[in-house]
Amino acid sequence: MTDISPRSYFSATDGFRDGSDAPRAFLERCIESIEAQEPQVGAFVNMNLEGARAAADAATERWKSGDTLSLIDGMPVGIKDVMETADMPTEQGSPLFAGWEGKRDCAAAVALREAGAVVVGKTVTTEFAATQARGTRNPYDTTRTPGGSSSGSAAAVGSGMLSAALGSQVIGSIIRPSSYCGAYGYKPSVGGINRGGSFDGFSQSCTGVLAATLDEVWTTTRAITSRAGGDAGYLGVVGPMEMPATEKPRRLAVLETDGWAVAGEEAKAQLGEARDRLAEAGIEFIDRNSSDAVEAVEAAIQGAMGTSRDINAWEGRWPLNTYARDMDRSQLSPSAIERLEQAESMTQDDFRELSATREDARRVYAALAAEADFCITLSATGAAPVGIESTGDPVFTVPTSMLGVPTISLPLLQAEGLPLGLQVIGFQNRDAELFAGAASVVATLG
Amino acid sequence: MTDISPRSYFSATDGFRDGSDAPRAFLERCIESIEAQEPQVGAFVNMNLEGARAAADAATERWKSGDTLSLIDGMPVGIKDVMETADMPTEQGSPLFAGWEGKRDCAAAVALREAGAVVVGKTVTTEFAATQARGTRNPYDTTRTPGGSSSGSAAAVGSGMLSAALGSQVIGSIIRPSSYCGAYGYKPSVGGINRGGSFDGFSQSCTGVLAATLDEVWTTTRAITSRAGGDAGYLGVVGPMEMPATEKPRRLAVLETDGWAVAGEEAKAQLGEARDRLAEAGIEFIDRNSSDAVEAVEAAIQGAMGTSRDINAWEGRWPLNTYARDMDRSQLSPSAIERLEQAESMTQDDFRELSATREDARRVYAALAAEADFCITLSATGAAPVGIESTGDPVFTVPTSMLGVPTISLPLLQAEGLPLGLQVIGFQNRDAELFAGAASVVATLG
Repeated sequence: MTDISPRSYFSATDGFRDGSDAPRAFLERCIESIEAQEPQVGAFVNMNLEGARAAADAATERWKSGDTLSLIDGMPVGIKDVMETADMPTEQGSPLFAGWEGKRDCAAAVALREAGAVVVGKTVTTEFAATQARGTRNPYDTTRTPGGSSSGSAAAVGSGMLSAALGSQVIGSIIRPSSYCGAYGYKPSVGGINRGGSFDGFSQSCTGVLAATLDEVWTTTRAITSRAGGDAGYLGVVGPMEMPATEKPRRLAVLETDGWAVAGEEAKAQLGEARDRLAEAGIEFIDRNSSDAVEAVEAAIQGAMGTSRDINAWEGRWPLNTYARDMDRSQLSPSAIERLEQAESMTQDDFRELSATREDARRVYAALAAEADFCITLSATGAAPVGIESTGDPVFTVPTSMLGVPTISLPLLQAEGLPLGLQVIGFQNRDAELFAGAASVVATLG
Repeated sequence: MTDISPRSYFSATDGFRDGSDAPRAFLERCIESIEAQEPQVGAFVNMNLEGARAAADAATERWKSGDTLSLIDGMPVGIKDVMETADMPTEQGSPLFAGWEGKRDCAAAVALREAGAVVVGKTVTTEFAATQARGTRNPYDTTRTPGGSSSGSAAAVGSGMLSAALGSQVIGSIIRPSSYCGAYGYKPSVGGINRGGSFDGFSQSCTGVLAATLDEVWTTTRAITSRAGGDAGYLGVVGPMEMPATEKPRRLAVLETDGWAVAGEEAKAQLGEARDRLAEAGIEFIDRNSSDAVEAVEAAIQGAMGTSRDINAWEGRWPLNTYARDMDRSQLSPSAIERLEQAESMTQDDFRELSATREDARRVYAALAAEADFCITLSATGAAPVGIESTGDPVFTVPTSMLGVPTISLPLLQAEGLPLGLQVIGFQNRDAELFAGAASVVATLG
């Protein structure tokens, strides 16, 4: 593993207070890291360094005067390039949107700026946050994928180019790249972070946060949701503005998911070892062999990939249909065309059935809350695979997307000497509790 | 009342079959009507007559060959100017978006074109589909408002410039203008028509349809939802592709709502007369005096205006905040600035309470389904008021917006010799049943 690591902003803020460091200096260290790594990694689509420097200077003044806007005032962040920004184009990983400017910020970006965060650039996304990769490389091994669709956000945060970034996940687009790139990555409960101004309308999709530490993930999330709320009609993530107090879970459920059959031996061994260490610390475990409730969940999430892909196909008919007819069909990837063709063969009745399957799975999973504080599993089948055409297998992440529940990838494991995430999975709208428990896991294993 | 009336497309389709008429000829009659009325009324922001004529010619060929795409193949329609269209700008009634082109169709427009409908133009909306009027006049009396926010859609459909148009409603933006302009207007159950590509993200907002006849409202709706479904995560309006068979209700509930105190005597007398005629036809009635369930609903929807406005303020913080900061605050109307300032004083806790109030009201209303087939009330306090600065009082329409239930304005009443709607209000996701019952009301009163 190369000598790179995530760059915690919170580890520097004491220096901002005593004057030995400053947000502008912190930003310059990020920019040095970008200059060193970006040519090999390709995490960014666009940057606004002039704007970032001005924002960091303003934050520097606020830290000096003790008049900060939030706990993340001055934090250098990236915005996934499916989310609108007033100062940079939003290209969605598609040649159809090359240079496209909405001239407005998405809701989460407005909130970040109101909190004083420094928007450095737009991070690479796969085409329309789906499958077609756009060339980003894994900073820990540039022969490998960083994962997707939040490829650039994970690569930039995992490698210390930025302290935090926004991602989005409808199948596995936050948890998997976070796992591959050694970042903390969080997909909230459905509706948890306002998606206004993000080109991301799927019913099980969420905006989420990747950051250098668990604390920074939570604090950045609350800096957003306290200002912008959740999706329309949803309360959004609530809880303390600072990281919830660590709370050791009494009992955890181990989920194998459909991913177990294809996970690497090393990855499975790492999860087993983590379980053993947590058990040694006094945490009880249940799994499919010991608990009917876990067994029922494993059955309910079987086939989550197919269900999720079919739901997304139906819900994604628009805008692919207008892109194909009114823009330029030849500029859509083969996978986008395939999804459009699938959608055009579907009916409302198909969606009704898929939706019922998803609702059933959500009910079965919700019942598990009576048996376990939260669940653990792998974030991915192993280390990032070699090659950058595919973004890797999302099999370990799709169940939580379908279930609409909060999930965090903790970069506590390794495979092939590369980062691998331990995934902790909570219950709907109990995101703060999951963070409190995840902190305990980090303290025990970290 | 002037000698104008809605222009039914379905009344012409027999002629398309026998060759005595054609969609292109129908379109030309619409264009004549537009040329005659538009200078006084101002229903359109942009038109694409060349594109419309080409689409009508194609429909003419399909009717000749018997190979139509749908029941509404060739129907001239308008698209409210908060909804994106590939061939025309989408200006949202705001100078900030003058000439703005998304270059794609919204989901409903794609579906309409796939069904063969002829998109004639973009119809005037108030600023961001909220309160600031944009100059459209009522075709039945040009000293009066057409209502809002779907001002142009209602004016164009009520006056026979088009057979149907898309509108949207979050407070009273379909039912009230339909009432003022003599159109049939329908706001579906929440989520009923896919809002993809409409600048309209409120949780209780819906895309809806205005048309010359009840049959055309339903058929146009199903032509859309069978192709585009509902909002992401929602099934969307389902039922037969053609108008549901007329079904005489057994029992109806009369809702007075907060509007009763401010309704005109003539309007109240018209509603009373309609009730008497329906009772003579054998339909039972319950109201707040005779039914505890109705009394409970009346109590639950009291204050619907305040609750709805506050929910919309919170949910509308974005994008008004980025428009004010990143575009040009001076180009926002005073009412938009006021909403933004309200939003900026609100918290997630405020939204939590508002949302709970709305959920309580929905539960109380749902219980009424055991007592009545559907409800009736006025669509507006009376005829369209004089003046075009205000779009009139939405007090009779806001309860159904808050409740998320389907509602239709039937242009069966009059006040001051001008159109007035009878509003029929159904239960969530039972839209087809409401149409079946509404057909019976039309047959009895029409």
